[in-house]
Amino acid sequence: MVALKLLPASEHERVRAAEGNDDLRLALLADMCRLNALVAVKRAGSGHLGSTFSSLDVVVHLLYAELNVAEIGFEDPSRDVFFSSKGHDVPGLYAALFGLGVIQRERFLRLRRLGGLDGHPDVGVPGIEANSGSLGMGISKGKGIAWAKRHGGLGGRVVVMTGDGELQEGQSWEGLQAAAHERLGDLWVVVDRNQLQSDKPTEEILALGGIDAKLASFGWEVASCDGHDQAALRRVFAGFREGDPAKPKALVAQTVKGRGVSFMEHPAALLEGGGTYRWHAGAPGDEPFERALGELEERVRGGFSALGLAPPALDPVLPEHAAGSLEGEPESGAGERARVTDEYVVEAYGEALLELGGRHERLVVLDADLASDCRVRAFELAFSDRFVECGIAEQDLVSTAAGLARHGYLPVVNSFASFLASRANEQIYNQASEGTKVVYALHYAGLIPAGPGKSHQSLRDVSLLGALPGTTIVQPGNAEETAALLRWAVEDADGNVALRLAIGPSPRRIELPGADPPRVGRGTVLREGRDAILVAYGPVLLHEALLASELLTESEGLGLRVVALPWLNRFDAEWVAGELATFDQIFVLEDHSPVGGLGDGLRRMLDGRALSVLGVEGWPACGTPAEALRFHGLDGASLADRIAARVGVRSVR
Amino acid sequence: MVALKLLPASEHERVRAAEGNDDLRLALLADMCRLNALVAVKRAGSGHLGSTFSSLDVVVHLLYAELNVAEIGFEDPSRDVFFSSKGHDVPGLYAALFGLGVIQRERFLRLRRLGGLDGHPDVGVPGIEANSGSLGMGISKGKGIAWAKRHGGLGGRVVVMTGDGELQEGQSWEGLQAAAHERLGDLWVVVDRNQLQSDKPTEEILALGGIDAKLASFGWEVASCDGHDQAALRRVFAGFREGDPAKPKALVAQTVKGRGVSFMEHPAALLEGGGTYRWHAGAPGDEPFERALGELEERVRGGFSALGLAPPALDPVLPEHAAGSLEGEPESGAGERARVTDEYVVEAYGEALLELGGRHERLVVLDADLASDCRVRAFELAFSDRFVECGIAEQDLVSTAAGLARHGYLPVVNSFASFLASRANEQIYNQASEGTKVVYALHYAGLIPAGPGKSHQSLRDVSLLGALPGTTIVQPGNAEETAALLRWAVEDADGNVALRLAIGPSPRRIELPGADPPRVGRGTVLREGRDAILVAYGPVLLHEALLASELLTESEGLGLRVVALPWLNRFDAEWVAGELATFDQIFVLEDHSPVGGLGDGLRRMLDGRALSVLGVEGWPACGTPAEALRFHGLDGASLADRIAARVGVRSVR
Repeated sequence: MVALKLLPASEHERVRAAEGNDDLRLALLADMCRLNALVAVKRAGSGHLGSTFSSLDVVVHLLYAELNVAEIGFEDPSRDVFFSSKGHDVPGLYAALFGLGVIQRERFLRLRRLGGLDGHPDVGVPGIEANSGSLGMGISKGKGIAWAKRHGGLGGRVVVMTGDGELQEGQSWEGLQAAAHERLGDLWVVVDRNQLQSDKPTEEILALGGIDAKLASFGWEVASCDGHDQAALRRVFAGFREGDPAKPKALVAQTVKGRGVSFMEHPAALLEGGGTYRWHAGAPGDEPFERALGELEERVRGGFSALGLAPPALDPVLPEHAAGSLEGEPESGAGERARVTDEYVVEAYGEALLELGGRHERLVVLDADLASDCRVRAFELAFSDRFVECGIAEQDLVSTAAGLARHGYLPVVNSFASFLASRANEQIYNQASEGTKVVYALHYAGLIPAGPGKSHQSLRDVSLLGALPGTTIVQPGNAEETAALLRWAVEDADGNVALRLAIGPSPRRIELPGADPPRVGRGTVLREGRDAILVAYGPVLLHEALLASELLTESEGLGLRVVALPWLNRFDAEWVAGELATFDQIFVLEDHSPVGGLGDGLRRMLDGRALSVLGVEGWPACGTPAEALRFHGLDGASLADRIAARVGVRSVR
Repeated sequence: MVALKLLPASEHERVRAAEGNDDLRLALLADMCRLNALVAVKRAGSGHLGSTFSSLDVVVHLLYAELNVAEIGFEDPSRDVFFSSKGHDVPGLYAALFGLGVIQRERFLRLRRLGGLDGHPDVGVPGIEANSGSLGMGISKGKGIAWAKRHGGLGGRVVVMTGDGELQEGQSWEGLQAAAHERLGDLWVVVDRNQLQSDKPTEEILALGGIDAKLASFGWEVASCDGHDQAALRRVFAGFREGDPAKPKALVAQTVKGRGVSFMEHPAALLEGGGTYRWHAGAPGDEPFERALGELEERVRGGFSALGLAPPALDPVLPEHAAGSLEGEPESGAGERARVTDEYVVEAYGEALLELGGRHERLVVLDADLASDCRVRAFELAFSDRFVECGIAEQDLVSTAAGLARHGYLPVVNSFASFLASRANEQIYNQASEGTKVVYALHYAGLIPAGPGKSHQSLRDVSLLGALPGTTIVQPGNAEETAALLRWAVEDADGNVALRLAIGPSPRRIELPGADPPRVGRGTVLREGRDAILVAYGPVLLHEALLASELLTESEGLGLRVVALPWLNRFDAEWVAGELATFDQIFVLEDHSPVGGLGDGLRRMLDGRALSVLGVEGWPACGTPAEALRFHGLDGASLADRIAARVGVRSVR
């Protein structure tokens, strides 16, 4: 285990109070935030360092020099409001807020932990002004805030940081045109022009071209400068303050993704990765972490020395077992690593897609800048002429697929469930209304991993597509079933299929002998039991369901039959009658809200039969898998307790 | 009743075959299509003439001269593909297709009728290439089609017509940037730059500024010309054919909304309307219809004469009773007009909003270019400083509201349910996740009016918001309850409220003594009965429910209690237990899909009780209210039959 250490807030205070060149101090503070963000991400086991580092000089300049919040605090209605629309750069913002004393040490060290700091911005955290993480909403939101300030006669500017790739999201242009129309001169946008989105160059994924010209044509006052040059930033913002009060202002900040750690910097890192940038998301391994920490610490020490300050004192930080935890690892199961398989259903998806691509020349794969996460890169490399990259633009993604489907192709559309089922919902409706067939791969469905927070956790997607005529929603429980269901979707289904996929590894290998070919509308018994039945789906909760059943047998002698049902809105009536309806006690376990999920569908089938749904109530918790499952009472142990209580097991036995 | 008459397709053939100047012939054909579209809209009782007329010269030029479909038909994979993204201009396209013999006379005369021509484009109609009507999807779809043509090595260009106001929709810019990136030189966009959106100028609602410059900055080859000048169109399209094969092409066609009928033309019509353009939607009354028909017929006759052709023969068209039917009029009820009230819940909404605006100075109303339809114009006039017009940009609309709500305002957000709940779904989720409160007014919810077709009918909105934590969904049954629920939403509700509103008039006055103040989660008995209970909501289906109950009493002696329940996802447990659970036969009538509506919510409450849901199955039918209700078995008579069958009434009595 590597040694972790932190620059305490007192060191930031020391630098802020030091005499000497402002710009040197700001540059040093930015590096101090880089170091702390790196440590927080390493400890969390996940986070987005590349764009944290590219944006940090701007963030520090704003919070420590340009804006009034360091002075008047985050409650004053006349404060300047700053937030990042892209949101995944939030470790840097947290570090800056920690340095200002706004976020306390204990919380800062609980990045992506329950009760700590959400993986994407959440207003529950001090200093966080807006929830973000799903891209493209920030300019509109900033426009609302600027409007409120003007209407209320309050002071304060509104500064929204956006990614460059984020400008592919159409809502950005809605917000840009509307802010110009509203003449919101106190709305500023800073584009973190780091040239990379996820793991590829913007100009390769979906060329942005001349952003300055586009912004100007939308009625904005536009400036551009080196986003790591504190003096340049100072000049630009001074210019904005003196600018046309009726025009919103945009700075295109030319930045370097990974800035501050030599081997994470673009373009060196891109070259080293053979065209793929590997520091966009995820914590670095121990060796690169130590190298990065060493570089940053050295530069920070140099900065202190240059300012004539005594060397900084770094606090050691306990790693805690959580720092090394695998996403997907259940707490129930006592953290035994051996129980965590390396089986990803999404890997099986990528392989099956590749195989189907070879057999079906009309199969086209569409992506919205999540090709690596969605495991469609192999397809892209093998069938580049049938791979359509749409950039971060889910609505365009779906309507493009609709056009393809009308002209004889079978599109397989990929994005995260939370973005695809929600933001492109009306486009999916429109496509379906044309009577064509599209396969929607809803990646990252469900509660786990819970570290990124509610912008990414998709617990509504079944409800969002449930009322769409002719659409079948399925979620496979293991790799083999993933391949089988994708094949079924491509080759046999007669309408749209939404394929819900977990993104993390399976906590255990789920044995599904009857998965291939899939039997439409029917489930598989995973574990016998005669006292009650529990229907579940997806690798994460099937594992917890099995655990619950095992625990109930062990502790109560209760026989809980566990059934895996990958069909979430389409059921074989005979199977339902023969399998489910014979039980007095029917439980449905949802990796979804209890509203609009499998349980509601089964209730429609089993009309008049009582049925207990155990799902994700309220907002999904942010934390480790164990924390989130436990929080929602969906880990095996909690499930066993809840089911035992419901069955009234002690009176039964 | 006015006399209706049509120019038969044979007259178009005569003009097409005539000698002489091509441009004169095309201009004449456009006027002939104007005349026929006018008659079809008058007969339908609804339709969008303003932009039908502004776009028709371009449509006719494309279909009759530039594109190959008149020659090779609409099935050939190498055909040129043309469709309109805005969609509401489809009466003109239908007229052009009728003139080409693609749509037959009988169907052409069934605009907005069951089995006829959908109110917005649907691929079920010959010659219609894409479903549209919800704005902003067309460029993306065209991009998909152009990609398919290029990949398949097929000939044919793809030409997408968009509105100018439609460019406010962010997806337009997603599609524009992506098409340029994909180098789709055979994708052409024609912007129908008629300067007006709905009933106001684009530059007033949300300035588009220099569209040419914007399009060019997004990488398109751009031209502009008079969109009514056939020679100019010819030159522009010839230029496109010779243009850069790697660049998509856009024509900004400078057009006149209402073109061809003097008193419908912008800007005269706008001035005459005191700043509001009244010919955007809806059929003209008899007097203006006859004037318009007279003008068009005279010009058409002049055109025939100028080409040296014998005068055209117009076919008389039977008006049929349907031509005068009121939207909202039930067929059950035998068409007695007296039963149709003039009570609109949306009027009551507008008045209550105005009143609340006077009392709450932090109440802000947001609109997405539907201010007249949503009845928020009075608020806008009274409290212009608290009215935010967002243009046709629902995502921006919602995120702007989110910003306002975070800074102390109470936003009341207005759009049609089908657009707001669907296209802005993720933005609503994001707003709700910040813990703020916003009131979402979901106008035009439900099946009726059914004339505009499935792009506008919202039968999924309850399901789309149902899994959103802390959101209450209500639908009032009459005017008084509308005001009461809006007041409750503004003053008492502790979280988001989605207020579902019917847009048509109530078929009858629904008597709700207990509506004000509303009793959270409780319903009102509208009609007594002891044999079964029917729970319904909204003025349209409450009327049908009452009718069914009346019919069942009359014909079967069956007592069907009718309960109005405005709470669609929040229930008073005591009331449910005391009122509903005492019945053996519980029916729920949904102005919604049976998936994800009130019935599912009540099933969750009444777990283990049988419950029959009667809702809108499959795709909502397009037609008159009577046709659509009958089609779905939701008119009073059908409901009575279905309920009697379910209750097994004859064996009971």
